[in-house]
Amino acid sequence: MTENQPRVAFIGTGVMGSSMAGHLLDAGYPLVVHNRTRSKANAVLERGATWADSPGEAAAQADVTITIVGYPHDVSEIYLGGAGILEQARPGSLVIDMTTSTPTLAVTIAERGHERQIDALDAPVSGGDIGAREARLTIMCGGSAEAYQRALPLFEIMGRSVNHLGGPGAGQHTKMANQIKIAGVMLGMVEALAYASAAGLDLAAVHRTLAGGSANSWSWENYVPRILSGDMNPGFFVKHYIKDLRIAIDEAHKMGLELPGLDLAETLYVRLAQETEYEGVSGGDLGTQALWLLYEQDMRAQGQDV
Amino acid sequence: MTENQPRVAFIGTGVMGSSMAGHLLDAGYPLVVHNRTRSKANAVLERGATWADSPGEAAAQADVTITIVGYPHDVSEIYLGGAGILEQARPGSLVIDMTTSTPTLAVTIAERGHERQIDALDAPVSGGDIGAREARLTIMCGGSAEAYQRALPLFEIMGRSVNHLGGPGAGQHTKMANQIKIAGVMLGMVEALAYASAAGLDLAAVHRTLAGGSANSWSWENYVPRILSGDMNPGFFVKHYIKDLRIAIDEAHKMGLELPGLDLAETLYVRLAQETEYEGVSGGDLGTQALWLLYEQDMRAQGQDV
Repeated sequence: MTENQPRVAFIGTGVMGSSMAGHLLDAGYPLVVHNRTRSKANAVLERGATWADSPGEAAAQADVTITIVGYPHDVSEIYLGGAGILEQARPGSLVIDMTTSTPTLAVTIAERGHERQIDALDAPVSGGDIGAREARLTIMCGGSAEAYQRALPLFEIMGRSVNHLGGPGAGQHTKMANQIKIAGVMLGMVEALAYASAAGLDLAAVHRTLAGGSANSWSWENYVPRILSGDMNPGFFVKHYIKDLRIAIDEAHKMGLELPGLDLAETLYVRLAQETEYEGVSGGDLGTQALWLLYEQDMRAQGQDV
Repeated sequence: MTENQPRVAFIGTGVMGSSMAGHLLDAGYPLVVHNRTRSKANAVLERGATWADSPGEAAAQADVTITIVGYPHDVSEIYLGGAGILEQARPGSLVIDMTTSTPTLAVTIAERGHERQIDALDAPVSGGDIGAREARLTIMCGGSAEAYQRALPLFEIMGRSVNHLGGPGAGQHTKMANQIKIAGVMLGMVEALAYASAAGLDLAAVHRTLAGGSANSWSWENYVPRILSGDMNPGFFVKHYIKDLRIAIDEAHKMGLELPGLDLAETLYVRLAQETEYEGVSGGDLGTQALWLLYEQDMRAQGQDV
């Protein structure tokens, strides 16, 4: 730690945030933290972070405020609400929202911040809990080049692939493109498995065979083994993915864009959340690979021997 | 070449077949070839293969007959037609269909072969023209273990990943699973690009960013650069992919399986073939990455600035 190390406020110490905040502590940044449920901040508090009673109060003490919370309405509340971050943060400070949220809200925060001489970045991530823990996140950043340069040393502590994609909202838009790409991949993955299963093939052999060729993908390599071993635990929650897919659909419609594959994936993931459960856990609280369960259910309903 | 090298009949010297037959010649196998259009066999004839006037005539001279032709009706005609392969091939010989064709037809050929003491394998490939040229194909084989062992030395000359997936038809079924997986990936790929384009993002930057994370796939790595440089040339033809998707849909329906992502991909690829052309080439004769053109067309129709 050096005397000149900026003081960082970290809002949101869930599964992702705790790991990310931990890396900043390790790097010597003085940290003030807030989380809606205080007990989830205990791990970082025990490692030397100080507590603030609200997001605004945390931001008021910091040079840089980083947020990673649940849903866009949470982002809106902590930034734009009364006594919120943009009201309390110091002029000249930097705020970075790393929640996967709406591009539209990212633009609003950047505009309101600008009025108060606060730099704002949107910087959602991919890579999940493992990526956060191992500091291997992909960070997709939107905002001014100056603000990005200010944030870069912090990003490089938390992520492996750090990317500046354009002005305010560009990070969120890129994350939406990422989620749209995954939507198609997940459809292809579970439908290929459903077909192979109905055809009576050895699914482990099919997995190996397709992994060696042009049908391969990160999801195929990483999720199929979990599916075949019955592991539906969340790397990434279905309920959070549905949130992302809906943001993507809303933004696409605002741009006059029809994306039928995305629409189909959203419909199926909503059915998964509503209709299935696995070992006592309802669909929304499973990992995204659980889309397989919906196809299995439909195959059973059609009299298949799954 | 050794005295004991089995004599191989090779039927179908198109883009794929010419490269594959060439590797067998290089390895010292005596080759007799036939192709519907004789001129396309010239390259292998010049390298020492001998010509036969029909598939049956080629098979009659061989210990192993390999076929890779266009469509299932071509496979049916050359194997099951009068004076065809199964009528002319010697008892005790081996026949291998490497065309992407129907699992049902593969089973029929195996059964008819069995009646005549001819071993039959279905062994479609993936990897495209480049994979064939560089002997890096993925080979997906169905049939008896004994027949597979007989074919293995030949497969290892033509492919890098050689897989035995089960009895007759299992190779074709695995290839269908492969094509179904790719269908979802292609949807996700072009919809992610369409979204990113509508959002005004730098598509090359989005490509790099997503390639580094969990949205990545073989198609994203290999096709997006071609799309961004306007290269719609076929690695794999749209018209052949539509054939494969239709076989997959038919087989799925026979098994009582609904695969909505596959259905959607087929609908869009048929529209691509019917509605688009690029630099004077109609959609069906473009490469599968040209699905992007359909989204571009729809975006222009919606008033987007693409």
